[in-house]
Amino acid sequence: MHLLQSTMAAIRIPSQAFYQAATQRLADQARPKGSLGILEPLAARLAAIAATLDVRFRHKFIVTCAGDHGVVAEGVSLFPQEVTPQMVYNFVQGGASVSVLAAHVGARVRVADLGVNHDFPPNLPIFHCKIGKGTANFTRQPAMTRDQAVRSLEAGIEIVNRLVDGEGMDLLGTGDMGIGNTTPSSAIIAAFSGLPVQTVTGRGTGIDDVMLANKIAVIERALALHRPDPNDALDVLAKVGGFEIGGLAGLVIGAAARGVPVLCDGLISTAGALIACELAPAAKAYLFASHNSVEIGHRCMLERMGLQPLLHLDFRLGEGTGAAAAMPLLDAATRVLAEIKTFREVGIHDAQNKGDETREESVGSLESVSAQATVAP
Amino acid sequence: MHLLQSTMAAIRIPSQAFYQAATQRLADQARPKGSLGILEPLAARLAAIAATLDVRFRHKFIVTCAGDHGVVAEGVSLFPQEVTPQMVYNFVQGGASVSVLAAHVGARVRVADLGVNHDFPPNLPIFHCKIGKGTANFTRQPAMTRDQAVRSLEAGIEIVNRLVDGEGMDLLGTGDMGIGNTTPSSAIIAAFSGLPVQTVTGRGTGIDDVMLANKIAVIERALALHRPDPNDALDVLAKVGGFEIGGLAGLVIGAAARGVPVLCDGLISTAGALIACELAPAAKAYLFASHNSVEIGHRCMLERMGLQPLLHLDFRLGEGTGAAAAMPLLDAATRVLAEIKTFREVGIHDAQNKGDETREESVGSLESVSAQATVAP
Repeated sequence: MHLLQSTMAAIRIPSQAFYQAATQRLADQARPKGSLGILEPLAARLAAIAATLDVRFRHKFIVTCAGDHGVVAEGVSLFPQEVTPQMVYNFVQGGASVSVLAAHVGARVRVADLGVNHDFPPNLPIFHCKIGKGTANFTRQPAMTRDQAVRSLEAGIEIVNRLVDGEGMDLLGTGDMGIGNTTPSSAIIAAFSGLPVQTVTGRGTGIDDVMLANKIAVIERALALHRPDPNDALDVLAKVGGFEIGGLAGLVIGAAARGVPVLCDGLISTAGALIACELAPAAKAYLFASHNSVEIGHRCMLERMGLQPLLHLDFRLGEGTGAAAAMPLLDAATRVLAEIKTFREVGIHDAQNKGDETREESVGSLESVSAQATVAP
Repeated sequence: MHLLQSTMAAIRIPSQAFYQAATQRLADQARPKGSLGILEPLAARLAAIAATLDVRFRHKFIVTCAGDHGVVAEGVSLFPQEVTPQMVYNFVQGGASVSVLAAHVGARVRVADLGVNHDFPPNLPIFHCKIGKGTANFTRQPAMTRDQAVRSLEAGIEIVNRLVDGEGMDLLGTGDMGIGNTTPSSAIIAAFSGLPVQTVTGRGTGIDDVMLANKIAVIERALALHRPDPNDALDVLAKVGGFEIGGLAGLVIGAAARGVPVLCDGLISTAGALIACELAPAAKAYLFASHNSVEIGHRCMLERMGLQPLLHLDFRLGEGTGAAAAMPLLDAATRVLAEIKTFREVGIHDAQNKGDETREESVGSLESVSAQATVAP
């Protein structure tokens, strides 16, 4: 509990001075104002976090948290639980979807076992953080104890600290693997939002109408049984969450505390991010939504956190695939800010600011703006 | 006219065999069916065009076509016409938006002067294809002659042939530069679709309500004066188009004839693509929409061509910026198809195909599927 508390307390507000300097430079570039759409506020947010107008991501990671779920006994997924460890091995071997998409964008994938119902060899190159061999079936008892919830969060924090200290991680994408884990994710957003379960529950890996009706009923039963307290995110995580979801929440809190931007993936990763932001609202400043999943609960989560997804690709896979797919846009945003020349730099009169010469005079070069701006601690 | 006709006649249908083999491999991969959303049909289309399941783009180009417009005399743009050549120099020097975004994705930018109202030095490293020094003011006379329209198309075709033959171009993004060129672009979609001008006309670089009302009136006057024939794309291009729009149309026709996929940018590039597809509907199979622009006419164009945009970034810049931003998604799609392992390859039973063992048995490896598929000419 100490690590969780101290990490949450260590989260700083990104540099407002660099946010403003970035916004000013974007407005002065030799193109119509606002013409690069959502890349512009994205670039400004990244500049504020990194406290520089020339952000470069050199050590990108995707951390895919894996865990199993007792609730699969209720028939909520098409796939058997054995697929979770099989996919972990597939990640390690580099043949999975996230492996391919991450390699394409120059990101390294690290897998973390938060709670897979399988004994991995101790020398398997993953983060071994098993809290338990799958959660309990939450239609009968809480998914985990409150202590386990805290430990899953702290495991995520420790992973971030190891990757920042040991490998210089400067951009983190999150991902998940766990058969059945759309069920706890929908339960989490239902618990926080109070929305009817059927409005936040989707087909996961592709279940039919009968299975979907059962999945909704399963979540409704669990919420009625446990009545998780929406003002107590640890209570929600413990009663209807998952070990990997706790790990994913810990990743967000850990990264925010270390000043590392986090690109969260789809429904499950975003459920983790939501737990993180309910616990530590300051973490939101470091969080970016990579895409909007086909899963209907995902949009509700993003709206609750005020995040706008970067991509709309109709993904519904998880693993960190959406986070990987969005990484080039973050890089693009940083290059836009640093490299597109201003009207002044290219000697073109800015038609949008006719008669506003004093303002133009007051804008310095990239270097002088950087020198003037206050560096955040 | 001969080059245009022979090039249109040379467009082939992409390989249906590779499209089917790609679709089958995507369905067999160790992930829920369809879970990579729009990247899947994208990958299959690219495989069909290249006639391989392992498509790799090694020589990406963005060709930015520049031209001026007599209609700027009617006050349709915030910027003066002098900005067109200034931006051409900026592209050549690498400081423009498209320069930055293209460099980020490993694409080379080539600029083509189709009709800028400026004399560039002959040794400036651009394609010198000037058809005229800006179009005529189409509120008074046709923007260009029919012969000039054909020559602008053929200039685009010749650029493609030079880039394919000389530099091995295997992926083409299109882009535009031309003060005032949203006006002819909106006129073109209005002419083809018959939609009211105000429903396809936007604010361009950011004009206010008064200028927008004038822009709409200008287009309405031109359409009423010339009555371009929607069944004759050359007539539309000549009467209310632009030289760079003709060049952009030629790029699409040329690339389709050479079997090179084309990623078209925003409103102006798509106006060019629309001219191309109205002239040669077979070109559509090679065309991909990079993004949906803020410009309201853009969506109508994409709907008319049945294209789904890959990105939704609220860009309204042109130059080829959207095409550059989307290139990593095309690369990602090719890697998805070639590299994600199938359930069979990783030894996981495919829960989605229980009891359908004969089908599973019939699916070969990437290599054997490639060997079986018919190679298109």
